[in-house]
Parts: sequence; C-alpha cells; structure tokens
Amino acid sequence: MMGARWPEVPAGAAGRRRGAELVRAILDAALGQLSTVGWNGLTMEGVAAQARTGKAAVYRRWPSKTDLVAVVLRAGLPSLGEIPDQGSVREDLILLCRRMRDSMHSRSGQALRSVLHECDSGSAQAFREIIRSVVIDPSAGLVRDLVRRGIERGDVRPDATGDYIADVIPAMMMYRSKVCGSEWEDSDITEMIDQVLVPLLRV
Amino acid sequence: MMGARWPEVPAGAAGRRRGAELVRAILDAALGQLSTVGWNGLTMEGVAAQARTGKAAVYRRWPSKTDLVAVVLRAGLPSLGEIPDQGSVREDLILLCRRMRDSMHSRSGQALRSVLHECDSGSAQAFREIIRSVVIDPSAGLVRDLVRRGIERGDVRPDATGDYIADVIPAMMMYRSKVCGSEWEDSDITEMIDQVLVPLLRV
Repeated sequence: MMGARWPEVPAGAAGRRRGAELVRAILDAALGQLSTVGWNGLTMEGVAAQARTGKAAVYRRWPSKTDLVAVVLRAGLPSLGEIPDQGSVREDLILLCRRMRDSMHSRSGQALRSVLHECDSGSAQAFREIIRSVVIDPSAGLVRDLVRRGIERGDVRPDATGDYIADVIPAMMMYRSKVCGSEWEDSDITEMIDQVLVPLLRV
Repeated sequence: MMGARWPEVPAGAAGRRRGAELVRAILDAALGQLSTVGWNGLTMEGVAAQARTGKAAVYRRWPSKTDLVAVVLRAGLPSLGEIPDQGSVREDLILLCRRMRDSMHSRSGQALRSVLHECDSGSAQAFREIIRSVVIDPSAGLVRDLVRRGIERGDVRPDATGDYIADVIPAMMMYRSKVCGSEWEDSDITEMIDQVLVPLLRV
C-alpha cells in the first residue's frame, strides 16, 4: 500500500521549491490535525502553526477549512492495491476486508473517519462526493471485481450483479465501527464473510 | 406507532404537577433542539429558554448535556410495533424497512440521527449503549423474529441464524443515509431486499 499521495505541485520558476515544500507541509499538518483532533478540532491557525507558517499562507491557497480538508481527503487513503486470486471468493473477500480494515487505521484513514463522523449534515454535503470517490467507489469497485472473478471461477452465481451487493461489505464494516464502536478483528471478518457474503453469493 | 414516551415522572406531593410539566417541557425542548440544530447546536441555555425556564432548573436535574440527551434518546423512537405476517419473509422485511425508514423521519428519529452523525468519538462512547438499546437491538431483534418466522414458514434456510445476518438491514439503511446522503424510497427498499436479503436467506 502506498502512502498518501499529495496532488502534483507544479515546480514553477527556479527557486520556488519552497512553495511546493510549504504546500506539502500544510497538507501534512492538516492530515495530522484531522487524525488527532478531528474535523471539529482542526483550525486554520493550528494547521499554519504546525506547518510553521502564517495563516495567510494557508488561506491564500485554501480559502476555507472545507477547501483544505477536501484536498487532504482527495489525496486519499493508501491504495488498497490489487487482490491476488486466493482461490475462492471467500478468501478473496476476507483479504479485501483485512486490507480495508488496515487502511482505515492509517493516518489518512483516521482523517477520513473523523470527517465522516464529525461533519454535521451541512458540511458533510461538501464531502460526500469526495468520500464516495475516495473510499466507497474503490471498495465497492473491488468487491465487484472479486464477485466477477468468482462468477468466472464458478463459485459465485451469475446473477450476483446487483449494485446493492457491492455495498454490503463497506456498509457492514462502517456499521460496526460507527455504531458498535468496535474494530474488526480477523475472526470477526471471517465470521461476517461466512455468515453473510458466502450465502449471498454462492451458486 | 406511538409518539416519544417520556419517562414516568412521579407526581409527588399535591401541587407539584408543575415539576412534572416542567420536566416534560425541558425534555420536549431538548428533543426539538436536537431535531433542528442537532447535537452540536444544542445548548443547555437554549433548551432552558425554549422550555421557558432558567438554566438552573435544567442543570439541577441533568448536570450535563450528555445526561439530558441520554434521557431524550432513551425515551426512544416511536415503537416499530409488530410486523404482521405478510406471507413471505420478503414482504415481511420490506414492511419492516419501510417502518424503520418512516421512524427515522419522526422528530425522535431526526434527533437520533443528529447524535449519531455529530458526536465525535469522545461523546459517542456515552451514547453507543443507548443507541444500541434504542435503535439497533430493536431493529436487529425484529429482523431475527422475521427470519425465525421464515424458517418456520419454510422460506428461510434453517441455518440463517448468525448474528451478522441481523445487522445487514440496519447497516445498509444507515450506510445509504450517512454515506450517500440519500433517503430510502420504497423502490430502493424493495431492490435492496431482493438483491441482498432474499438470496442471503432463501432455502
């Protein structure tokens, strides 16, 4: 899995590397704030201080907290990577879930969780599209790939193509974290896959 | 479905009805605040003002925002009631989901959603047990009842008794509302039941 990938910062004229370094320092500080004090605790002043710069340098580039955090989130979680064929859709999905669980514990993952949990419905509007493209679509997309692989392999029924099917894993994983306040142990993942996904998908 | 059921307030000595009325006014004001400005916007002063009383009257009974909101939530959502046998587990679950959707649109439902969405992880600890007993366990319990009915009826496989199975519906419904910011139309509910629950449960 790769680390957070900051957006490409144009090098600009010779001697402007300081600008690119400053952008990275600000984004890194914002990510750090999100992971520790969360959306509610993050302030532009706090980010500037942690990046050892002035507020103006932050506001000039990102006029609002929402603008700044949007960039941080868009840089996204560590990539989940490809899921190598484990021989069965059961094993493929178990591996996917473990990687999703581990990525939500990364610093970017903590940042995402804080925004998801703390935004009131007003601010959350601004982030849903980002969260959807950064977390949801990739996980749902990976589930779809693994289901398709299973259909080809012959251990998934050919009509298991409904859109809601791809939502089950992200929904269940978010539910347990958000509502039950508990984490996904390896054994929990295996139980969930065996109780829900295998019967749902099998021929 | 019944309205919010405030906890029994002892009548006490003759002439203390004002106390009970005041408690109801305060709880009603707190519920109103939660439904409109949410957990973040609710203040003890605002609640007191809306209940046309002084802050002291509120703090005396509920020393903190958490204590006050806990009572409001514990009084709970309108009861989902019994789900009369619709003839198939599919129809039973569709009806359950519609009632869950409707109850989350009630004033108590809005209040619950605001707490769920806005509590940062610190405060949320305090509410998880309440939310679990008020929303989660009842919905999951109802799903279990309907699954058991289906097993007896013969349209659900006898081994569909895993705990994660009962979480699928609440997880999916919360996911779409929270992450996708969209509501459950009747047709969405039917699609979700057909794509996920029916294959998951059938013999």
